[in-house]
Amino acid sequence: MTTEFRERLKRLRKKLSSAHADALIVTYPANIYYLSGFTGSSGALVVEHGKATLFTDGRYALQAPAQTASAGVRPQITKESLPAAVGGYLGSLRKRVMAAYDPSRVTVAAQSSLEKAAGPKVRWQPETGWTEELRAIKSPAEIAQMRKAALLGSRVFEQALKVVRPGVTEIEVAAEIEYRMRKLGAEGASFETIVASGRRSALPHAHPTTKRLKQNELVVLDLGAILGRYCCDMTRTVFLGRAPERVRRWYRAVLQAQQAACEALAVGAKAGAPDAAARQVLAAYGLGRYFIHSTGHGLGLEVHEEPLLAARQERRFEAGNVVTIEPGIYVEGMGGIRIEDDVAIHAGRTEILTNASRELLEL
Amino acid sequence: MTTEFRERLKRLRKKLSSAHADALIVTYPANIYYLSGFTGSSGALVVEHGKATLFTDGRYALQAPAQTASAGVRPQITKESLPAAVGGYLGSLRKRVMAAYDPSRVTVAAQSSLEKAAGPKVRWQPETGWTEELRAIKSPAEIAQMRKAALLGSRVFEQALKVVRPGVTEIEVAAEIEYRMRKLGAEGASFETIVASGRRSALPHAHPTTKRLKQNELVVLDLGAILGRYCCDMTRTVFLGRAPERVRRWYRAVLQAQQAACEALAVGAKAGAPDAAARQVLAAYGLGRYFIHSTGHGLGLEVHEEPLLAARQERRFEAGNVVTIEPGIYVEGMGGIRIEDDVAIHAGRTEILTNASRELLEL
Repeated sequence: MTTEFRERLKRLRKKLSSAHADALIVTYPANIYYLSGFTGSSGALVVEHGKATLFTDGRYALQAPAQTASAGVRPQITKESLPAAVGGYLGSLRKRVMAAYDPSRVTVAAQSSLEKAAGPKVRWQPETGWTEELRAIKSPAEIAQMRKAALLGSRVFEQALKVVRPGVTEIEVAAEIEYRMRKLGAEGASFETIVASGRRSALPHAHPTTKRLKQNELVVLDLGAILGRYCCDMTRTVFLGRAPERVRRWYRAVLQAQQAACEALAVGAKAGAPDAAARQVLAAYGLGRYFIHSTGHGLGLEVHEEPLLAARQERRFEAGNVVTIEPGIYVEGMGGIRIEDDVAIHAGRTEILTNASRELLEL
Repeated sequence: MTTEFRERLKRLRKKLSSAHADALIVTYPANIYYLSGFTGSSGALVVEHGKATLFTDGRYALQAPAQTASAGVRPQITKESLPAAVGGYLGSLRKRVMAAYDPSRVTVAAQSSLEKAAGPKVRWQPETGWTEELRAIKSPAEIAQMRKAALLGSRVFEQALKVVRPGVTEIEVAAEIEYRMRKLGAEGASFETIVASGRRSALPHAHPTTKRLKQNELVVLDLGAILGRYCCDMTRTVFLGRAPERVRRWYRAVLQAQQAACEALAVGAKAGAPDAAARQVLAAYGLGRYFIHSTGHGLGLEVHEEPLLAARQERRFEAGNVVTIEPGIYVEGMGGIRIEDDVAIHAGRTEILTNASRELLEL
């Protein structure tokens, strides 16, 4: 991915030009990595037309130059707080400066410190997600990396099935899943692995507990791995034993909803379309009220990115979007079912990146 | 910990009273958990004198009431954005309201949305870390939990030593460490496990890579587990083979610096004292310039909390502080050594919670 940093900075500078800004302050770690290659936890990137400067502290004195050289970004080690250093730098430029920043990524305290350090020569202009807009369109190299991550996730799921049996705790299954990720080369999990069994499967975001899996229970397994810094995110729901007819009907409904949502993905389609398609299927089954979250989200360096696949989203898909499709139903006191895949949107076609079986597994 | 939530809210309300505020808006997840028991990723807690309300979305409709009942916090499920819901609520109260918020935890965009939704009857008052101040003083129950977490971390280190040998990759060692955590009951790692070998050990925050460990290398292992929501954080440095005299001398220097820093911990001592003590030892060895980060930090629900143990910190330790002590030296092109333990400060004594051996291990 190394050679892509300069191209990304070039695209960002076009947004700077359009907004008549002289500099963009980038404070969000995933955005800093995307533009510069720097992976430290503390940094601030200032992108100007002629150059880009990464402010960070002494802990990264060796790492920062090594990581940002290929992007052409100059590291600046500082002992000041980052807002003080960045503000001071902008204020020291021998001209009036229009500086853009993202108000959803900068705290009230940091902005106040930036303004104080920069002084009156710097004017401030809010921007909303310029880097996130670039990140939503993946390059072929990024999609290739995400394909690998998704296949790794699929393998992890298949391997983890070996330990999904009555008597094992949810935490033990989650530990096995995360261990398998690492053994297959992942940097780690992109979120806390969800293993939710029995009634707990009705909690969409259940943390795994010491509850033991039991015969005749649904088990929702929601896992994400990070490979080469890119995330996958997939969910499968299995049944321990022979599923009763009601569970089979629920499963069919969710699977059909998921397929309908996948089919609604296309360049030019609205980002709300997959959600509408999934809800239509579940409503026809009389299960609409049990689908209590949105249908999916973009995926990339982070597990939640643009675009959001929720009701009434008017934004249109573009080639290079990679999204999750994950409808589910959650019935209090009974259990839940969710099926989730990662899908890349290409010109004229879509590509499901995760390839584990979507059929109901009875273990 | 369940019975402690009401006590924490009571202490927080004293701060509200002192500041003549009617409500505090808590947006930071660890603070929300500390005060209410809620563990969801999306929520905003409004603490008033007579009540406390947790705003969250439909995903947490089952989880929120279950988790916040013992704190006496009322959940409020909303379809609005959280700033819009909280602002609207405050604006609807039949009085003028002085609302406190932490400018270092609220983004410029969220504050703008809060103010717009609240309207002119609500005035806004910055506060700085009221909840974090409470969190810095651990109760006996919290320290008991952190003792367990630290012992778990120590066991993980000892178990992981079995795989630390030439030919194994850094990532494989990290995977083993995180697997052992989970098998011993941890919810997960409190940060990405650091395994840095050879020259890479000179990077204080190295991510593990596919580099294989080699004979005659230093290996820094920095790990943190979360157990019952509380973090541990410990580092040991081992040598593969028989360490040369220079490495032994470096190790002695770091170990003496670490001991000196631990001895500088006491109720009433300044938070800068351990850092000064560690630097004095390393300077006497001629290694002062290689110690490029601060000596430690508070630890609790998060792996970095108050107090910060850096140079010139004037704040004084109090009984109930739990901190890391982690001096290290980092020599570019050669390698690094760090030794880190977790220490609880009690009235009249300190207690080192991590109990793995601090002697130089030659494997």
